[in-house]
Amino acid sequence: MTEQRSVPGAGDLLRILRDGRPRTRSELAAVTGMSRTTVTHRVDALLAGGLVGPSGEAAPAGGRPPTVFSFRPGSRVALGAALGATHVRLALTDMSARILAEERADLDIALGAEKVLDWVTERGLELLRGAGRDRGELLGMGIGLPGPVQHSTGRAVSPAIMPGWDGFDVSTRVRDRLGVPVLVDNDVNVMALGEHRTAWPSASHLMFVKAATGIGCGIVSEGRVYRGAQGAAGDMGHIRVSAAAGLPCRCGQTGCLEAVAGGTALAAALTARGVPASGVRDVADLARSGSAPALHALRQAGRDIGEVLAGAVNMFNPSVLVLGGALALAGDHLLAGVREMVYQRAVPLATERLGIARSSAGENAGAVGAAVMVVEHRLSPEHADSLVAGPP
Amino acid sequence: MTEQRSVPGAGDLLRILRDGRPRTRSELAAVTGMSRTTVTHRVDALLAGGLVGPSGEAAPAGGRPPTVFSFRPGSRVALGAALGATHVRLALTDMSARILAEERADLDIALGAEKVLDWVTERGLELLRGAGRDRGELLGMGIGLPGPVQHSTGRAVSPAIMPGWDGFDVSTRVRDRLGVPVLVDNDVNVMALGEHRTAWPSASHLMFVKAATGIGCGIVSEGRVYRGAQGAAGDMGHIRVSAAAGLPCRCGQTGCLEAVAGGTALAAALTARGVPASGVRDVADLARSGSAPALHALRQAGRDIGEVLAGAVNMFNPSVLVLGGALALAGDHLLAGVREMVYQRAVPLATERLGIARSSAGENAGAVGAAVMVVEHRLSPEHADSLVAGPP
Repeated sequence: MTEQRSVPGAGDLLRILRDGRPRTRSELAAVTGMSRTTVTHRVDALLAGGLVGPSGEAAPAGGRPPTVFSFRPGSRVALGAALGATHVRLALTDMSARILAEERADLDIALGAEKVLDWVTERGLELLRGAGRDRGELLGMGIGLPGPVQHSTGRAVSPAIMPGWDGFDVSTRVRDRLGVPVLVDNDVNVMALGEHRTAWPSASHLMFVKAATGIGCGIVSEGRVYRGAQGAAGDMGHIRVSAAAGLPCRCGQTGCLEAVAGGTALAAALTARGVPASGVRDVADLARSGSAPALHALRQAGRDIGEVLAGAVNMFNPSVLVLGGALALAGDHLLAGVREMVYQRAVPLATERLGIARSSAGENAGAVGAAVMVVEHRLSPEHADSLVAGPP
Repeated sequence: MTEQRSVPGAGDLLRILRDGRPRTRSELAAVTGMSRTTVTHRVDALLAGGLVGPSGEAAPAGGRPPTVFSFRPGSRVALGAALGATHVRLALTDMSARILAEERADLDIALGAEKVLDWVTERGLELLRGAGRDRGELLGMGIGLPGPVQHSTGRAVSPAIMPGWDGFDVSTRVRDRLGVPVLVDNDVNVMALGEHRTAWPSASHLMFVKAATGIGCGIVSEGRVYRGAQGAAGDMGHIRVSAAAGLPCRCGQTGCLEAVAGGTALAAALTARGVPASGVRDVADLARSGSAPALHALRQAGRDIGEVLAGAVNMFNPSVLVLGGALALAGDHLLAGVREMVYQRAVPLATERLGIARSSAGENAGAVGAAVMVVEHRLSPEHADSLVAGPP
């Protein structure tokens, strides 16, 4: 029985202006079907809030030229946090995903939800102050967690590497401290969103692979994060690959991609070959230093990841595959292996225009994507009107 | 610079009423933000076209009770055609996908585009006449082709089993004969759509697998056919599976799913074992007659298809997998093999609520889905207003 009114509000004007093109009141009236009086009233509200500003005059059609208005992306800011197992990255961005301030810090996620989140909240507020921005300008905070998340409620779900976080209401905890909306998602989803918005905004279907300790995938389909039926989409680390046949995986199965191409597996294999490595960072450092066994291992890991991606390319025909995470950022060897396998195995129609690239958002993809998530939430049709009413 | 007016028209009222719930003029005004005068005007147009009708009176709130209006799904009809290599299925449906008339006929697609399409057009018109419906009530025709299709233009694209169809403008040819919009898609996409609308309307993510001579997949994601970047999504027949290692495939690769689990491969394998079979129909008939080698072959084909689907389930987390096509409809053995492999290999979170079922639309899935495709096109926000203006 709940049906939304489709009468456009000030938020709709904001959403129209967000494309960057300045418009006159008449143009806004024509696009929305609002009366001139209503448009004037709502533009005034947007001007008062600083969300739009006059941007010169339109071409005169006789008489005094009408004012044109533009969206001001710098008028509000958002915080994004990307939590890893042992570190956190924070970013303060404007509404166009431009980074205004950022920070990386070591932080052990096993300290537990309350300590970690309180630290993140405090540091976020310091970033805001340091950038000379006001709490009233903060739209919200987005948080990416290194484990499964129930996006709709903002809770962590039985996260393997996050003891003490299971079922914790991340969203409410942080919202209570900041007084702004807080959205939570898993790390690969926010990385995919950040990469899409900053590097591939016109890609219709992007798959972002994070190759690190584990291997996961975030999918942006027609502009939105694709989650699947239970929010479990992108769990590519436990798809079977031929090279892993018989190898035990931490998930309880054998033959999973992660069991042969994840950071832990690569470190163990290198150690067994007499090149000691204790985790994904060591593997990446070895590769950067030119260790031949490490480079070979990354190339083969790329092929194994590529075998899984070739199937995904046939099935879902993305426009671009982006590779991120410590293993992909440690040089071009993993990327080369992925390309080799995808172009060899996927069907020609699906690879004809397929881009395969390393992440250009790089280490910032997650924090920027988390900030983007909350900006887009606040500018969505359901919520944009609340921006005009002032700080929540 | 093209921006659509968001002022609601008669088509929007139709779209609102399409959920089946009757509404008064006041309710329609409240939902759309239209004035009462505008609503009255537009409801009159819908009444005149027979698209809605009065459906009794609302609960009185003092005085004369207001009239409530309902969508009339039977007031317009659509034709759907599903073409196979050697046969065609036609269906005439109303706007709720109810079959009013249907037909199956042998027809060799290799006769070429013009002969086949002219035949399909003529038979479609006979179905319409036989059901006592008028040409003016026909919304359009949907056509499913057994090969790649450029959906946006309605052209066939280098179809392996359709000599003489490459680049043929199917849509224009049929539209010129029928005088109504004609939409074209590949067979698995329309089957997925038909299955979703008739059997799983509330499934958020459905994957429909057609297991026949070839093996393909149609995907319905949040209500819409998922096509991917180039329209190539769902090409699962050429994903590598372990059981096909080294086997040559008609696509030029080795190790493809179709090379071990497609109808042609199964027929060849049975023949080699002394059970002669010349194609997918023979394999299905053998299975129906209880031939143990055929049942074993179908079970194993199900496992091989299930290996590919397990990966797709991890990656895309569908809510339901539906199995159709001659091999899946020949009993439960293929389904059992798929279930075995998917539940064994996919991650628990993705299979927790996953349904795996045989097609219930069965042999009609394609023709009904093709009709649904054109009904939904005509009722879409861009086109619904044209229904009120009378026959196109």
